[in-house]
Amino acid sequence: MSVPRLRRLLPPPYSHRPSRVVVDAVFPSVDGGRHPAKAIAGDPVFVRAHVFADGHDVLRAVARYRRLGEKRWSETPLTLATGDEWEGWFTAGAPGEMEFTVEGWVDRFATWRADLEKRITAEWDVSAELLDGAALLRRLAGHAKGDTARGLKRFATRIEGARGSYTERVEAALDPLLAALAQAADPREGATNYRHLRLVVEPQRARFGAWYEFFPRSAGTDPTRSATFAEAAARLPDIAAMGFDVIYLPPIHPIGTTARKGRNNALVAQPDDPGSPWGIGSLEGGHMAVHPDLGTLEDFDRFLEQAAGHGLDVALDLALQCSPDHPWVTEHPEWFRHRPDGSIRYAENPPKQYQDIYPLNFETEDWAALWLEIRKVVDFWIGHGVNIFRVDNPHTKPFRFWHWLIAGVHETHPEVIFLAEAFTRPKVQQALAKFGFSQSYTYFTWRNTKAQIEQFFTELTQRPLADYFRPNLFANTPDILHAYLQEGGKPAFLVRLVLAATLGPSYGIYSGFEFCENVAVEGTEEYLDSEKYEIKPRDWDAPGNIKPTITRLNFLRREYAALQFNHRVWFLPTNDDHVVACIKRPPLGGPDVLVVVNLDVTSARDAWFGLPLESLGLPLEAPFLVEDALSGVTQSWAGEWNHVRLDPEVMPAAVFILPERANEEPA
Amino acid sequence: MSVPRLRRLLPPPYSHRPSRVVVDAVFPSVDGGRHPAKAIAGDPVFVRAHVFADGHDVLRAVARYRRLGEKRWSETPLTLATGDEWEGWFTAGAPGEMEFTVEGWVDRFATWRADLEKRITAEWDVSAELLDGAALLRRLAGHAKGDTARGLKRFATRIEGARGSYTERVEAALDPLLAALAQAADPREGATNYRHLRLVVEPQRARFGAWYEFFPRSAGTDPTRSATFAEAAARLPDIAAMGFDVIYLPPIHPIGTTARKGRNNALVAQPDDPGSPWGIGSLEGGHMAVHPDLGTLEDFDRFLEQAAGHGLDVALDLALQCSPDHPWVTEHPEWFRHRPDGSIRYAENPPKQYQDIYPLNFETEDWAALWLEIRKVVDFWIGHGVNIFRVDNPHTKPFRFWHWLIAGVHETHPEVIFLAEAFTRPKVQQALAKFGFSQSYTYFTWRNTKAQIEQFFTELTQRPLADYFRPNLFANTPDILHAYLQEGGKPAFLVRLVLAATLGPSYGIYSGFEFCENVAVEGTEEYLDSEKYEIKPRDWDAPGNIKPTITRLNFLRREYAALQFNHRVWFLPTNDDHVVACIKRPPLGGPDVLVVVNLDVTSARDAWFGLPLESLGLPLEAPFLVEDALSGVTQSWAGEWNHVRLDPEVMPAAVFILPERANEEPA
Repeated sequence: MSVPRLRRLLPPPYSHRPSRVVVDAVFPSVDGGRHPAKAIAGDPVFVRAHVFADGHDVLRAVARYRRLGEKRWSETPLTLATGDEWEGWFTAGAPGEMEFTVEGWVDRFATWRADLEKRITAEWDVSAELLDGAALLRRLAGHAKGDTARGLKRFATRIEGARGSYTERVEAALDPLLAALAQAADPREGATNYRHLRLVVEPQRARFGAWYEFFPRSAGTDPTRSATFAEAAARLPDIAAMGFDVIYLPPIHPIGTTARKGRNNALVAQPDDPGSPWGIGSLEGGHMAVHPDLGTLEDFDRFLEQAAGHGLDVALDLALQCSPDHPWVTEHPEWFRHRPDGSIRYAENPPKQYQDIYPLNFETEDWAALWLEIRKVVDFWIGHGVNIFRVDNPHTKPFRFWHWLIAGVHETHPEVIFLAEAFTRPKVQQALAKFGFSQSYTYFTWRNTKAQIEQFFTELTQRPLADYFRPNLFANTPDILHAYLQEGGKPAFLVRLVLAATLGPSYGIYSGFEFCENVAVEGTEEYLDSEKYEIKPRDWDAPGNIKPTITRLNFLRREYAALQFNHRVWFLPTNDDHVVACIKRPPLGGPDVLVVVNLDVTSARDAWFGLPLESLGLPLEAPFLVEDALSGVTQSWAGEWNHVRLDPEVMPAAVFILPERANEEPA
Repeated sequence: MSVPRLRRLLPPPYSHRPSRVVVDAVFPSVDGGRHPAKAIAGDPVFVRAHVFADGHDVLRAVARYRRLGEKRWSETPLTLATGDEWEGWFTAGAPGEMEFTVEGWVDRFATWRADLEKRITAEWDVSAELLDGAALLRRLAGHAKGDTARGLKRFATRIEGARGSYTERVEAALDPLLAALAQAADPREGATNYRHLRLVVEPQRARFGAWYEFFPRSAGTDPTRSATFAEAAARLPDIAAMGFDVIYLPPIHPIGTTARKGRNNALVAQPDDPGSPWGIGSLEGGHMAVHPDLGTLEDFDRFLEQAAGHGLDVALDLALQCSPDHPWVTEHPEWFRHRPDGSIRYAENPPKQYQDIYPLNFETEDWAALWLEIRKVVDFWIGHGVNIFRVDNPHTKPFRFWHWLIAGVHETHPEVIFLAEAFTRPKVQQALAKFGFSQSYTYFTWRNTKAQIEQFFTELTQRPLADYFRPNLFANTPDILHAYLQEGGKPAFLVRLVLAATLGPSYGIYSGFEFCENVAVEGTEEYLDSEKYEIKPRDWDAPGNIKPTITRLNFLRREYAALQFNHRVWFLPTNDDHVVACIKRPPLGGPDVLVVVNLDVTSARDAWFGLPLESLGLPLEAPFLVEDALSGVTQSWAGEWNHVRLDPEVMPAAVFILPERANEEPA
């Protein structure tokens, strides 16, 4: 056949014999590799892939991984789990970007030996196959060095058997040492590599943390004046003692006075109304300034230091909007939308008007300057030591802006965490995570029935979401006081606290939750006399508070890995539509945790649940002891169905630490 | 800011303002676009995509499509179906490759007008917004020509309202004609295009066809000699009269004599044993020759013509293996595996041996010549007018060989269909479809219980499989006589026939099925006295045959689109674990078809089933008439639950053509 015709008939990639191995469906990946999956520094990354070839050859597969920009790959073996699906894991390195792939190839030696064994079992003569094997070993020796090469050649000689008996030759062929040598020398001929998949590695805090939101200006005792950072710092020991990891502060910037909202969102503010912290910007500065009533930038630096001293990270609010008094309004009027008369448009969503807020116009012709200025804001606070940003309404700004901002920040500061406050449609919320957000607020507050809770957490902990979307379960926020809390009182607060703290590796409460504050503007989820519009000092040790339960739960979260991961979650059958029972299992050893919650805040329940004894490693018939880590009461259980009595007036939930399983393999 | 720093901070794609619109999850696609999805010439291609942006702007989206290599795109609008998911459809062109994508953008005019309407509803003054709108219209006019541009400018003038009243200005803004003009002039600023997805378009036969397999050598009356193509042609009128579309012939090539298998797979053949047609090749030729007992190539050409005259396509068997007597063995010994002594290895799977078969070694150093020779074989038969190849055991040859072969053939002959006979693990079977096979044998023969049948067809008719995997449901094959048929006799044959013919747009039977031949080698699925090893003339009108039912079913298949597509299939609740009831709906109009089958071949059942009246467009309370197209009996039904009595001794199944729905939109 002519060379041109051959070239036409065998174009690349067919100009060389293509690999027989197919590698497909490699996970973790997002939308087939369009977006990076997420990982946590030091956590296992569980890799799965389809690896197969024509025929019945023995295959091998490894996951290969490296930091982006590195030359050398590390690798970890994959093992065949079920039906052509292979699995294995490696440990994610320090925060930053990694890439990984899966390589699969035909193991010539193992294929030969598996065939040899079948022939021996069938009692066939294998003289010819021994000679084939010896030839294969000599070929492998050509790919090896030193002892390996010498060892392979020695085995080849023994298997050829010029001097040994047939039995000795067969024994040599089946020698486990030979298998080890052959594996070491395997040249992986015709290996197939999947395309490189990216992995964004973030710090542990992106996965695990108990968050506490409070308004620093309310930290004092006088409702007529803002507390200072120094006064707010006095709250830190109490917050740390409750076991929180992160404090999240609403915007700390100067607040505008033009069209400032008054108490309870009144259109006209009284002279002494402090205004909403989200009305950012005044003559005193914008997104890179602190409110003078809170103190100076130096005071803020000191506050950060003090928080760090208590082991607390500080999350700032990144709310990309301006009050009419924000310096950007005069310095960069082109960053806002204008009316035909030249005046700047405030936020409107007919019939609602927000005269105190000027939205930024991301479609401005001057978009590049706007983007860069926002990057400067973020860099500014990072420069002050802030590593966490809670981003206000990111879904009203372009996705690709966030992609650019977060990726850019991560280039030099991969430790920085971005939490998306996007209460919007599922695909939009998910897109923000795909485009870079480390964590996201969720619909948790509105998932209050058993069916809702089971569906919600099942979806969150499975593919595709589990590969890129990290929920942060806030039980309340300054904007959301759910009817379940309004109506259910303290038992409802306990229910929601336990669900958030045990089912969410990241969860949070907004201050007041610990006192079961539950008075809303009627018919809404807004707090009455909302702290958004006024200064609200509290008695931080008011009777009836649930601080001991919060403290206990946060202690358990730090103690048990099961509560730190969303690795594996499954719901148990129960006897009652108000009883939720759920097992959490950590990825790499440590006990399973069983959480049982009575959602009915009006009556006590005997909550029965069915335990999958075998997969929990529990005795099938013999009784065993379990302790409710909330109440401290130890119970003796036996068999599949057991129960616990849950009285909402006492404690509507129980958290059982199950006996540790003997098998410590990745779960 | 310095230009270099700007370039570093705003690298491509950020050197221009990126689009705000996200287009994601576009279907049909296979593994995120790694493989082409499949379509059929003239069929609708249903496109779905996630399209969304930040904020609340009004979006628009279209699917764009063209033949590969064409410059101009065609397009079809997508409409918002639910939660950011858009859908629409276009018609696939002639066989060949197409590509398509989805484009989404912000509709500036519609966004402006939706906002205007909200303001008007809120009884706000919209003077400023009218001026904004007029400016927008002038901008749009700049993108338009002729009447459109003039019309837009006229509207701009009216809306600016130098001469008109406020009410007239508002009326002009809300004029539907204006909306049409604005849409026509829409420049799609900042549109996002998804990457181009490929689509392999195949002829209708790749989707729809009733197949009949028979051994031409058995078409005569004398069991001691092979029938000829001329005698086999005498079978064509009967096969065509039964309503079949395709006849599939086992290999028609010369059969080797060395180590030929005898009757019932005996190791040693008797002198008059004809051998298995899959033992290909002798002194008389190999894959490009016909068995002299069948006739000459010219006889085969005549047979093809005669089949075509009866409206029958002919599928040839492509079995890439050789008898020891195949010409390739001497001409290309390097295409086979060798023992150390130089002899060629026959097929072995210890403890089984197949001395009559030499497998081809696709790992030969001379692989390119082997590939090209096989391509030559396929081209040879295409040259003779064969357009369908049933490929024997493709899963034992490299996937990328098939990819190359099929894509290469399709370049010049996109009408050629390849059916994979791959009874292997699911992922391997699916990979063959991804790498190019038009159709595949399935596990249908082993899916005999209600639960199995429901799960099997639900999986086949949904994503991901539905986008690329086309089942061909053979009810029996020369290798597979399932225990259900062995034990169930005629009722079982009827059950399996109805299931295959109604649930499979492509289905097939191997001759003998129509006579309910069901005697197997005990404890196996092999036929006793298998036709693979002997010549088996039949009385083609033997009493007790089920040819009338076959004929009726094939008639119904041609009559009703519902039976020609696997577009939408859903199973109904029934009163009985032996009763399967299923609705099939065609994609573009035509009546729904209801199939009810009693799987219990031992007793008659009153088969009750629950009809989803509303989605079937049936009266919710009033009675309605339906005819069982198999029995011709008309029944009057009313309400959700109805029944039909199915007696296996009479007919274990019913096929109801439901009254056509009024709504003829794509279903």
